[in-house]
Amino acid sequence: MNLYEFPATPSCRRVNIFLKELGVDVPRQSTNVREGANLTDEFKQKSINGKVPLLELDSGETLCESVAICRYFNAEHANDLFLFGQSSLEQAQVEMWHRVVEFQGLYVGFQAFRNISGAYKDRENCVVEWGHESKNRAAAFLPILDKRLSESEYVATSAFTIVDITAYIFVAFVEKALELKVLTEYPNIARWFNLLDQRPSFH
Amino acid sequence: MNLYEFPATPSCRRVNIFLKELGVDVPRQSTNVREGANLTDEFKQKSINGKVPLLELDSGETLCESVAICRYFNAEHANDLFLFGQSSLEQAQVEMWHRVVEFQGLYVGFQAFRNISGAYKDRENCVVEWGHESKNRAAAFLPILDKRLSESEYVATSAFTIVDITAYIFVAFVEKALELKVLTEYPNIARWFNLLDQRPSFH
Repeated sequence: MNLYEFPATPSCRRVNIFLKELGVDVPRQSTNVREGANLTDEFKQKSINGKVPLLELDSGETLCESVAICRYFNAEHANDLFLFGQSSLEQAQVEMWHRVVEFQGLYVGFQAFRNISGAYKDRENCVVEWGHESKNRAAAFLPILDKRLSESEYVATSAFTIVDITAYIFVAFVEKALELKVLTEYPNIARWFNLLDQRPSFH
Repeated sequence: MNLYEFPATPSCRRVNIFLKELGVDVPRQSTNVREGANLTDEFKQKSINGKVPLLELDSGETLCESVAICRYFNAEHANDLFLFGQSSLEQAQVEMWHRVVEFQGLYVGFQAFRNISGAYKDRENCVVEWGHESKNRAAAFLPILDKRLSESEYVATSAFTIVDITAYIFVAFVEKALELKVLTEYPNIARWFNLLDQRPSFH
């Protein structure tokens, strides 16, 4: 088994926090995406989306997409953490909030950064105006997240789930990469962010 | 229980095909999003993403996001269809391919349509240049999907899963809304599309 990763990227960090929560360790291989190590034919054959993280199993099967990798380890390693929810309703709430946080938050933030900064302009067309629109939309999601966290200790349910990992990555990303002021402007997000910061898995 | 829907939309169609596969019927309430029926305060209080489909349970709990609604019914109604996969690996493959089809296909197609057509310009800023870039990216996903379907009978695994529903909706959407020629240009997609068309749930 091998986990191809570039730990500094938000997607790899999501998987690494999840694995620490589960208490699972795996062999890793650094893949420097900034230098284009994911652009080789060999890598593209293994990774359908062409990105890290990428998990290669001993059978030769490969899995990309960070949440798919998390789901694999969660199903393989019996545990009572229920990071994807327990009851039917909780499983659905995790799916719902995960999608809301990703589609209204994390991926909008990624589109803002990629299109404004041109960090990957060697491999994709950038539309700066869309980058700024995306930044506005990512900022517009913050009051929604703050309201939710005024009503619920964690994002998806009353317990810690994978959605908290994703939402934490979103907040950290837009603070750093988009220079949005989150923790000083949104007290409920700040309360929850500090709560997560106390978990060893986040360090 | 009540399912708020506007059946013509791709997201409502996804849920309806899934429910037919499961053999589950639920009370429905038509919600005309083109006329803005989802823009009322009452609707927004129930739906975190402000969209249809929206499922209201007898407990008063509400679920939006079509895949979350599918996951709820799949968990509530014991079945051996495994529409989200069975083994750990299959569950992860469903998650992976679902995300690939959504992030490289369906949602890119939606962004193309929304930004080019301005269908929702009364409620969101449109960036036409991003619409055209998104159309190009949706088109670029077609050979990837065609290659996969030259190697596998269904998209995610060797069996029919929720990913086939999503990919079918994607192909139908870009054929109609973006006028991309898919079924005449991509023989493996056409083979699979016709296979799905024989399932009663798709009609």
